[in-house]
Amino acid sequence: MSAKKPFRPKARRPRGFEDRSGSVLRAERHLVDTASRIYDDWGFEPLQTPAFEFADALGKHLPDEDRPNEGVFALEDDDGQWLSLRYDHTAPLARFVAENFQDLNKPYRRYQAGDVWRNEKPGPGRFRQFVQCDADTVGAPGPAADAEMIALSAEVMRAVGLADGEYLIRVNDRRILDGVLETIGASDPERRMRVLRAADKLDRLGRDGVADLLGAGRKDESGDFTQGAGLDLKGVETILAFLDSSGGSRTEVIGRLEPLVGQSEAGRLGLAALGEIDKVLSAIGVGDNRAVFDPSVVRGLGYYTGPVYEAELLATAHYDDGKPIQFGSVGGGGRYDDLVARFTGQAVPATGFSFGVSRFAAALAALGRVGAGQERPLVIVIAAEKDQSARYLAMASELRAAGFRAEAFAGNGNMGKQMKYADRRGAVAAVIIGSDEREQGLVTIKDLKLGARLAAEISDNKEWREDQPAQMTVASDAWIEAVRIVAKRDDKTV
Amino acid sequence: MSAKKPFRPKARRPRGFEDRSGSVLRAERHLVDTASRIYDDWGFEPLQTPAFEFADALGKHLPDEDRPNEGVFALEDDDGQWLSLRYDHTAPLARFVAENFQDLNKPYRRYQAGDVWRNEKPGPGRFRQFVQCDADTVGAPGPAADAEMIALSAEVMRAVGLADGEYLIRVNDRRILDGVLETIGASDPERRMRVLRAADKLDRLGRDGVADLLGAGRKDESGDFTQGAGLDLKGVETILAFLDSSGGSRTEVIGRLEPLVGQSEAGRLGLAALGEIDKVLSAIGVGDNRAVFDPSVVRGLGYYTGPVYEAELLATAHYDDGKPIQFGSVGGGGRYDDLVARFTGQAVPATGFSFGVSRFAAALAALGRVGAGQERPLVIVIAAEKDQSARYLAMASELRAAGFRAEAFAGNGNMGKQMKYADRRGAVAAVIIGSDEREQGLVTIKDLKLGARLAAEISDNKEWREDQPAQMTVASDAWIEAVRIVAKRDDKTV
Repeated sequence: MSAKKPFRPKARRPRGFEDRSGSVLRAERHLVDTASRIYDDWGFEPLQTPAFEFADALGKHLPDEDRPNEGVFALEDDDGQWLSLRYDHTAPLARFVAENFQDLNKPYRRYQAGDVWRNEKPGPGRFRQFVQCDADTVGAPGPAADAEMIALSAEVMRAVGLADGEYLIRVNDRRILDGVLETIGASDPERRMRVLRAADKLDRLGRDGVADLLGAGRKDESGDFTQGAGLDLKGVETILAFLDSSGGSRTEVIGRLEPLVGQSEAGRLGLAALGEIDKVLSAIGVGDNRAVFDPSVVRGLGYYTGPVYEAELLATAHYDDGKPIQFGSVGGGGRYDDLVARFTGQAVPATGFSFGVSRFAAALAALGRVGAGQERPLVIVIAAEKDQSARYLAMASELRAAGFRAEAFAGNGNMGKQMKYADRRGAVAAVIIGSDEREQGLVTIKDLKLGARLAAEISDNKEWREDQPAQMTVASDAWIEAVRIVAKRDDKTV
Repeated sequence: MSAKKPFRPKARRPRGFEDRSGSVLRAERHLVDTASRIYDDWGFEPLQTPAFEFADALGKHLPDEDRPNEGVFALEDDDGQWLSLRYDHTAPLARFVAENFQDLNKPYRRYQAGDVWRNEKPGPGRFRQFVQCDADTVGAPGPAADAEMIALSAEVMRAVGLADGEYLIRVNDRRILDGVLETIGASDPERRMRVLRAADKLDRLGRDGVADLLGAGRKDESGDFTQGAGLDLKGVETILAFLDSSGGSRTEVIGRLEPLVGQSEAGRLGLAALGEIDKVLSAIGVGDNRAVFDPSVVRGLGYYTGPVYEAELLATAHYDDGKPIQFGSVGGGGRYDDLVARFTGQAVPATGFSFGVSRFAAALAALGRVGAGQERPLVIVIAAEKDQSARYLAMASELRAAGFRAEAFAGNGNMGKQMKYADRRGAVAAVIIGSDEREQGLVTIKDLKLGARLAAEISDNKEWREDQPAQMTVASDAWIEAVRIVAKRDDKTV
């Protein structure tokens, strides 16, 4: 680098990190505010743990278990200890509970919203920093506590503006599959993993392909052979029946699963949990149209020990070309009874739920469910004369006192540039006092939405234009009222 | 580490990082929400930049300029590039503006609230992660824009519940001291620094001590000698007059400063800026009781180029022993016209303001200005019978529908443990349906606040206790109404 030429860094972001603004950010905030209010209503208390945890305290519970050493941002502190940025809010909660166990009033119910970081390969819609919003109950052993979390997540879906039928909470209990595997003698970890992998391909390969993978194996179109789980015919049929057992009411699903788990203890426990969850959900008004049982729900994270659930967005938006946008899962959770025990050796029952705020907010914004109509109309006071800033800023104050969002143009630029600025900001009106107006005690108000519409029309209808002028000049004691009229007209006509 | 014994990490936080909860966290959120609403009203748009920036893009503008390589958390990305966690919201804004300069509608007005990180030695009340909330206008050259930011900060102080007189915005312009130094021939950087350091010790050493440091030097009690700035008598007197020039109205301060800056261009520009700021503040109703001129305001950050300001909290709270708690500065800002130019080479005028949310919120909580009365009363439904969870959770739903915060006890524990839990949560009432109540269609409601008071009294006043029972049992169609009565009584009696 030459000493003569100053170093100029390039203005750019690290890959996988985004700047968020405008409607997306407003949607995120609306979602977090709404969820937080509901968590508060349900007796949860706010908590904010720090971004950094000791690396050993955070542990390795990322979904990608194949790469246990990857996935976190870590650095060495001055004293040689390694710190990691949190990758979720659950692992820090376990640390918090273990650290404060004696003093905590249990069950401890907390909610937390904030950024999490994943040091993974970024891609479209896949970022290395995003916002999660969690609620957890620690110290609650029974399935009733899981049912409460499921009901809570259904309540959040409603509160952010989704109608019943536009979302669904899919619930499962991990112990049911364990029970099914036990009945067919396939409980060893290797075989269990092959069954899980095969089941995960139902959408892509269909029943026959999955049956091959559950049995001897499968050769794909390219001729590559994938080793199967080695189940016998009865085993393959049992797993396929298990995968087919969703649909209909919650009690119907339980009825279909019962013969498949046989007498296995894990299976009976899992089914009993679903039974209790159904009872609680029905008692508090969460019907089969809002929460269903679905044995295909697995959840990636390794720490779940019982009930697991996903919140799925069923509502579809459409791309400009009319193609539907499917959103899928926007959150999920489950029971994790062993996470605090990592620190203390003592099992502490816990159950919780997390929304992927960034993903959920983007979906809500695409569906038009947030942001619309929430903002008050913006009015820009034009800086017509350089030495009149104080007057313009005082007028912006008056507009705010009258209930508008308002600002005086703070930059340099002629009238045309300022009008373009106001247009791009989405302002409903521009207020102008030039030297003529000032001398005569007048104020000019431009209706920017109407102005844009008139400009877009090939208008030879002179009469109509005179009826609905895009601009009016009024006496200086009536200007706020005139802005009110313009804003109201905007509501009516745009 | 033995393979037989599982590794148990210690549950602890890295030093300088805190868990925040309860009233402190609620105060933080209230402050950010309030400030955000006002920024929105004044025409600012929300922005969230990521936590990480490229180290070279972030630059080194920490207050501690003596250690330019310290102060940030940095790590090396997969591709060998260094990333740093942001230490404020201004440096990332400069990157954002430079990166999007062509597309931005200018002036660009944004606000941002979020965590910032400083890799510094932690201490009491001094953390390595804290929340800042900023508003900035980029592309606004004139002092009117600075005046708007000053008025905005004064508005936030009001909106969070402070009365005029409980806070003060102290405003200065850095160019005034430059002008004063020019008139006494002390503009060289070395001497300028010595003058600034001497000025900074006015509180501690008094006028005589500062006069020594401005002149030949000063020997302290231990005999150590500190080299002085070497000003002559007139120079010393001019600086002392400069430091004495605050107090009274804004125009009075300008009047005192005018003879001190003489004909220096920097000084005249600084004074002209203060003049314009006074004019705008007066026009929009920010009087001398809310914003004053104070030449001693410097602001640590090196990037400021003109007006600078501090928001000071004058209201005092008291420790338990009656000693006053002074809060001091809770925020500040200024003009920084060169920060975007780091990237583009092109000067972009900018001015902005930052609140130290964590510090400010702690002060507001200590003053009792937030949190009080904001929470709705919490009611706990006691889990009296193990198999009745669905009923209890349904009752909590009913309470929420009636406007309460409510939860059913979700843990294990006898009645005594559950009552203690409800007390510690600050609940106003506990609702109980034991087997007796259930069989008779009754509900018992315990008034927890009254119960606590009665328990604390040595009460032989039987009559009074019968008048105000701490517990009532009512028919199951009247229980919500009974809870309402208890909550209302609580408001009256506590």
